[in-house]
Amino acid sequence: MTISDIAKLAGVSSAAVSRYLNGGPLSEQKRAVIQAVVEQTGYSPDTAAQTLRTGKVRQVGVIVPSISSQSVGQITSGIATELGASRYLMLLADTELDEQMELEYLTALQRNHVAGIILLGYDSSPQLCKALKDCRVPVVVTGQRFADLPCVYNDDRSAARDLTRKMLEHGRKNIVYIGGSEQDAATGAARRQGVQDALREVGLNADGLPRACCAVFSMEEGQRCMEELLARCPQLDGVICVTDTVAFGALQVLRAAGRRVGEDVGLAGIGDNWASKVVQPGLTTIRFYQKQVGQEAARMLLQSLEHTGPDAAPVRQTTLGYTLVERGSL
Amino acid sequence: MTISDIAKLAGVSSAAVSRYLNGGPLSEQKRAVIQAVVEQTGYSPDTAAQTLRTGKVRQVGVIVPSISSQSVGQITSGIATELGASRYLMLLADTELDEQMELEYLTALQRNHVAGIILLGYDSSPQLCKALKDCRVPVVVTGQRFADLPCVYNDDRSAARDLTRKMLEHGRKNIVYIGGSEQDAATGAARRQGVQDALREVGLNADGLPRACCAVFSMEEGQRCMEELLARCPQLDGVICVTDTVAFGALQVLRAAGRRVGEDVGLAGIGDNWASKVVQPGLTTIRFYQKQVGQEAARMLLQSLEHTGPDAAPVRQTTLGYTLVERGSL
Repeated sequence: MTISDIAKLAGVSSAAVSRYLNGGPLSEQKRAVIQAVVEQTGYSPDTAAQTLRTGKVRQVGVIVPSISSQSVGQITSGIATELGASRYLMLLADTELDEQMELEYLTALQRNHVAGIILLGYDSSPQLCKALKDCRVPVVVTGQRFADLPCVYNDDRSAARDLTRKMLEHGRKNIVYIGGSEQDAATGAARRQGVQDALREVGLNADGLPRACCAVFSMEEGQRCMEELLARCPQLDGVICVTDTVAFGALQVLRAAGRRVGEDVGLAGIGDNWASKVVQPGLTTIRFYQKQVGQEAARMLLQSLEHTGPDAAPVRQTTLGYTLVERGSL
Repeated sequence: MTISDIAKLAGVSSAAVSRYLNGGPLSEQKRAVIQAVVEQTGYSPDTAAQTLRTGKVRQVGVIVPSISSQSVGQITSGIATELGASRYLMLLADTELDEQMELEYLTALQRNHVAGIILLGYDSSPQLCKALKDCRVPVVVTGQRFADLPCVYNDDRSAARDLTRKMLEHGRKNIVYIGGSEQDAATGAARRQGVQDALREVGLNADGLPRACCAVFSMEEGQRCMEELLARCPQLDGVICVTDTVAFGALQVLRAAGRRVGEDVGLAGIGDNWASKVVQPGLTTIRFYQKQVGQEAARMLLQSLEHTGPDAAPVRQTTLGYTLVERGSL
């Protein structure tokens, strides 16, 4: 019996149960429902309270590639919500997109006695995979999929395929792609493959897809890649971008070149950045559920901390869905 | 003799010295310069290395109002850079804009034996001020100014004044203001005062400034406030917004009402969100140096950790400058 079991039975959030157990602020109604469930199940709040006092490790390490990116902020915020509700604190390590630092922090966090580690992955090297499997504490990965490790990730390939299908429906024929490094299996390889899947379905030359590669997902890189592709394929009439931020860079270059986005040329991004509804025309994009990715990852980790030994749950890999958000840019 | 002293003598960053001491990657040239300084000064790298091994507390607590906001992400990223270079890890607590949680985390972090605490402040209640002064470990505050505490903050009042002056130069006479809660001394009171300062300078009725107040700095709140002000003051020809995100909300309402931004009505924000150069017309705004705010705060804290007792430095309060970024929206 865990806090989340109590929460499910009471029809409230784990956070509410945690607040109940720790004497935090709570509506009278919720307090009554939770109390009833706690009494029925015989769940002992003392156990939870004791854990708090006995000094059992209450820290979870979180490794992020760059805390100032919007999607990383959203995932981290989801992790913080869940951990906070269970009275865990987050030991945050920002690698600043340095793969070597990723490995170093994995070691440093273990040395700092964290109970578990959540990694927001952006690369998928065999070296990293090995280091994750060698961890002495439970690990959950978000954003990437590693065989045999608990992961929460987005269905990047299907998302990119659906987006491209939608662009094809708008009659675009000469589609180009601005993508990311193939070292990143999720945003790099999977999104590129999704675009090609859709082209292949309608008999277009998927292997010949003209594409350029961003070193980082910035507006500046989007601009650079768009300029490159406009020079190589002046006849292009559709541009798919690996992220919205990259698409905003492309948008500026297309405007400057006198191409009317949404009329002469279709443009789409991935990620549903909040700015996508402010630009004109609004950017068609894919909405992921990043905060939920973070929450799910934290819940997975907390579960594996609560259930160990013979009681341990099997490795779980969760894909979260997405929504195509159509605006005026196709 | 500290790492930063060595850095100064060698003419390199503290991060470089730290990497030297910890055997991290470093150019041959820098390595040679640092080695020379270390040898000349007799600084013992063993002491630093020992500190790492002897289990001295190497964690700094960081309390943020909401990790998914852009400015918070930038400040946190600056903190991470500096702490990482000195081999400190960041124990991150996200209050989700809950003032009660701010106080709870202050206590919890101290209980978790952090060496010091950095608070990204968004309110300035006497209760919080007292709790900060009662902390058993060094504290640095960013974003707010508390008497007698080390702080790093932006000059919000002067920034808002300069922005309003610029709008007045464009001939706008009926200026309205979309602001934030006065409980936040920095973004609430100080920015509002700055706008009024500029109106007063040219003999306009500053006290009668029509204004609306956002509960949070979101596009939705910007929309709501803009609708309210358009209804109350249909003759308005200038809108100053407390943040760029709020201004994007106002922009959408102005567009929908048929007002041409940059022609019929001037619009300005504060914060230089990256989207400000993507919207049309580009948004005139104030650029703060948030990453530097975080770096400066971390450096302040690290200094007070290195120099204690009679060697302690006096309380320092630092204001960082800003830049007015003029685009087409005035």
